[in-house]
Formats: sequence, structure tokens, C-alpha cells
Amino acid sequence: MKTYFACMPCFLNQALRACRFMGLDDQKTRQVINAVAKLIPQIPMESSPPETGRAVYQIIREISGNADPYQQVKAENTANALALYPVMKQMAAAAANPLAAAVRIAAAGNVIDCGVNASYAIEKEVDQMLENEFAVFDMDAFLAQLEKTERILYIGDNAGECVFDRVLIEQLPRPVTYVVRQAPIINDATMEDALAAGIDRVADIVSSGTDAPGTVLSTCTSDFLDLLKQPWLKISKGQGNYEALSAGPYPVFFLLKAKCSVIARDLDVDEGQMIFASSSPPDFSRAS
Amino acid sequence: MKTYFACMPCFLNQALRACRFMGLDDQKTRQVINAVAKLIPQIPMESSPPETGRAVYQIIREISGNADPYQQVKAENTANALALYPVMKQMAAAAANPLAAAVRIAAAGNVIDCGVNASYAIEKEVDQMLENEFAVFDMDAFLAQLEKTERILYIGDNAGECVFDRVLIEQLPRPVTYVVRQAPIINDATMEDALAAGIDRVADIVSSGTDAPGTVLSTCTSDFLDLLKQPWLKISKGQGNYEALSAGPYPVFFLLKAKCSVIARDLDVDEGQMIFASSSPPDFSRAS
Repeated sequence: MKTYFACMPCFLNQALRACRFMGLDDQKTRQVINAVAKLIPQIPMESSPPETGRAVYQIIREISGNADPYQQVKAENTANALALYPVMKQMAAAAANPLAAAVRIAAAGNVIDCGVNASYAIEKEVDQMLENEFAVFDMDAFLAQLEKTERILYIGDNAGECVFDRVLIEQLPRPVTYVVRQAPIINDATMEDALAAGIDRVADIVSSGTDAPGTVLSTCTSDFLDLLKQPWLKISKGQGNYEALSAGPYPVFFLLKAKCSVIARDLDVDEGQMIFASSSPPDFSRAS
Repeated sequence: MKTYFACMPCFLNQALRACRFMGLDDQKTRQVINAVAKLIPQIPMESSPPETGRAVYQIIREISGNADPYQQVKAENTANALALYPVMKQMAAAAANPLAAAVRIAAAGNVIDCGVNASYAIEKEVDQMLENEFAVFDMDAFLAQLEKTERILYIGDNAGECVFDRVLIEQLPRPVTYVVRQAPIINDATMEDALAAGIDRVADIVSSGTDAPGTVLSTCTSDFLDLLKQPWLKISKGQGNYEALSAGPYPVFFLLKAKCSVIARDLDVDEGQMIFASSSPPDFSRAS
């Protein structure tokens, strides 16, 4: 996805939210705002928003001196989600269609802001997600690709959400390689977060190499780019990965909530709607 | 009111909205965004938001070459409001407390975005406003000041809204001086808009001298500043005037809807609530 004009004020808003989250004082907050404002005229419209997100959080890291402000929140999110894990696993197994139910549970992980919800609230969200209407729910295309693939590349999003992904991975009939960020960025899942969620018990875990809040290909390792070129079914969780990967060149199943008006317009859905959709007709030849 | 950190992304958002309203092309929109982004590090936190609003719209005027993009919308807003004027006048006259009803009708003028509502929708809004709960409705203090004042200084806000102000002015038991902006800025009322609304039939009209979207004292004429020093009851309509005048030094009755979270916090009310409140205990000595 390209950058839209509406993303420009949003970069400032995101920086401000991070400053508040970190409890930065007024002087440092003003420094962050000024630095992000100075960045704006340099942002290419053809870049994807996570590329700018990466630069914004570099600014915040430098000014705050804090490389991983979300560390504790991420650990809490994972703990809250793990507390619910046995229930979610059972929910998926008991469903009429366990795979479809597990896709919905994984989607719930993208919806829930574990930072502000206690675990009982998560349980309610998961319950609702099992009934939730998706704007697109391409299960038939997904099953068709599952038949043909020998492995699944599952590109993770946030910490905590990994636990929900684990429920889906356990329902997938093929081995899974799970992808995390290389370095902490906002509350995105790193190797440490995936391990804490127990992903290593159900999948191989690799880093994409990026420290952006999305799988920005120009910042990924060649090892990961080689994996992307494999003719495997690929699942991409969340908004940042959608923004980074929607322009191609790899066909991917996107599973996310359209959390802002810009993404919703890009997806041609209403803000707040859920999507489980292939980026293109199944065409593995594009990936080679 | 000072500038809050949350105002910074909002200045960019406002600029973007104006670009869209004017149908600016992508290249000029980008120029506006870049220029406003460059302005942000120079904004003093102790300045009021309309001071920056003035600079933002100067940028937009220069890049667009359009000095008054809202001219047509303002004329339409006034025409829509005038179509409802006889009904509103009758509503106030027929109310158990005509003056309180007229205050509420004037407040409705601040709520309605005439640019997007047809006149039947305005009528519904006015009906609702007559029932609407205000966060503060200082009628007793207002009546006490009305008793003592020989004249009222009524600081207007937007075009169209002038017609609603006219209904209130007709219920006021003292002569009124109505204040407009000197030059077009967004949809704020100028002399032309006040005349189109028929304010000249019920009040004297003067310009504050400002071309800011609020009564920024440093941009006002000395003639207007002299009027502000008079020991008259003063009414200030809308958010921009609140932002410019709330820090003093003149006691003013503010009549507005808290349309954003920053104003709401500054007023200590919920976003979206209405206010009719004195800026201070009645103390005309502060004005001398």
C-alpha cells in the first residue's frame, strides 16, 4: 500500500501516542513532534506506511533513550492470551468447522488490544468473533491452496496475538514457518514474544530481519526473501503487514481488521470490518 | 487557550480537509502538507490555536491562489438559515422563557454544519437543541450581568450562524454591537456575511480587524480593543473565539459546542457537550 495524504497527520498522532505511553516529558515530546514534522516533507508517497513508521519509532527511540518501551505490555498481553489459550483451543476443536473457527480466533487476536483488556474481556471478544461477519472470508480459496501447498509461511503481527495464531497453526494441516520482526518496534512480535507464546511447539520461527512495524521487503534479510519466493501458502496478519505487502509481488492471504479509514478505502471495505482474503487469484508462478 | 500537543496533528488534518474541500490536485496538496509540517516546529505552545490556524490558511491561500474558497458555501449556509429564520423567531417568542430559548437557538447555529445539512435537518437540530442538556448553562449569572450592562458586545463566529445569532439578539434587552472577522478565513463570518444575515437590522456591526479563525487580540484593531475594554456584557460564539479569548483578560460569556477532545479537556466537559458559561465571576474591573 502506498502512503495516502491522510497518513501524514496520522504519523504525528502515532508519535504523540507513543510519547504519552512512555510518559515522556513535555520537552522530549516536543522534540519528537518537531522531528516527525520535519520528516513529513521527505516521505515519498509511493513508500508504504510501515517504512515511515520505522523512521518515526527510530526518532522516538533516539529521543527517549528507550529501545523497547512496550516490553512489559507485550509480556502482559502474552500472559493474558495464554491464560485463555486452553479455552480457545477447545473452542476451535469443538466448532462445526474447526479450521474456520481457528481463522476467526486468530483474527480476534488482531482486534484485541491486550494492553487495555483483562482476560475475561478477551474471552468475550473471541466469542463475538466466532459470530462476526467478515467483509471477505475467502475460505474456499484458502482450502484450495492448502491442498496444494507443502508448507505455510505465517507472517505474525503483534505480541499476544501470537497465542491466537498458535490456535490457528494447530488446525493447519501443513507444517508452518512463523515469521517475527528482528527488533522491537511498538508491540510487534519478536522471537522472544513468539517463544513466550509457545509458537516453537507448533512451528519453526524465523525473523524477517525487519525492524519496521510491517514486513517492509527492503529491510528484510535475503534468507527471508528466499522463503517468500517459495511456492507456499502465505498468511499475513494485521495492518502493518498488509500495508507493506499488498502491492506485491507475492500472493498472500491477508487476515486483519481495517482499523483506519485509509486502509478501509484501500481494501474497499468499511472501517472496522474484518478481512480474510487472498491478495490475488492463486498464482504461485508470480512468486518465482 | 494554549496550544496542546494534540493540536499539532490537527493542524495538518485541517489543512488536508481544506485542500479536499477546494479540490486541490495532489501536487498542490503535497505542497500544503509540507509547508504546514515545516510550520509545526515553529508553533509556540503558549500561542492560541487560531493564531496557527491563521498561518495555516495563509499557506493554503498562497498555494491555491484562492483567497476565499468558502464564499459559496457561506452564502448557501446563510440562505438555508434564513429560510428557517421566521420559524426560529417564532420558536423563541412562543417559549416559556424566550431568552433562554433564544440562547439555545443561537447555540444550534454553532452545532450545525450548514454545508452538509439541508434546511429541514437544521429545523430538527434546532428542535433538539431546545431540549438539549448543556454541561454549563449559566443563565442566572447572565441575567445578573444583563441587568447591569448598557450594551452587549456579541462576537460572532461562522457565516450562517449569524442568522441564529440574530434570533438571540432580538431577545436581548440591550443594544448590541456584533463583531465579525475583517477578512475571509474558512467559513467565518465577515461584514458581508453578517449583512446577508440581516444583522444590521438588529445590531451595529463592527470588524475586530482579525483575519484569524478566532479573535486573536494581537491581530485586532485598536478600535476593537477599545470596545473590549468597555464594561459591557460580552458574548463569544464558537470554538475559535474560545481558544483565542479564554486566557483573558476580558470576562466573556462563552457559547459553544466542545467539538474536539482538546477543547473538551480545557473546558473540563465531555467532547460534544454544549457550554453557556462566564469565563469568570462577573468582574468588570478586570476589563479596565
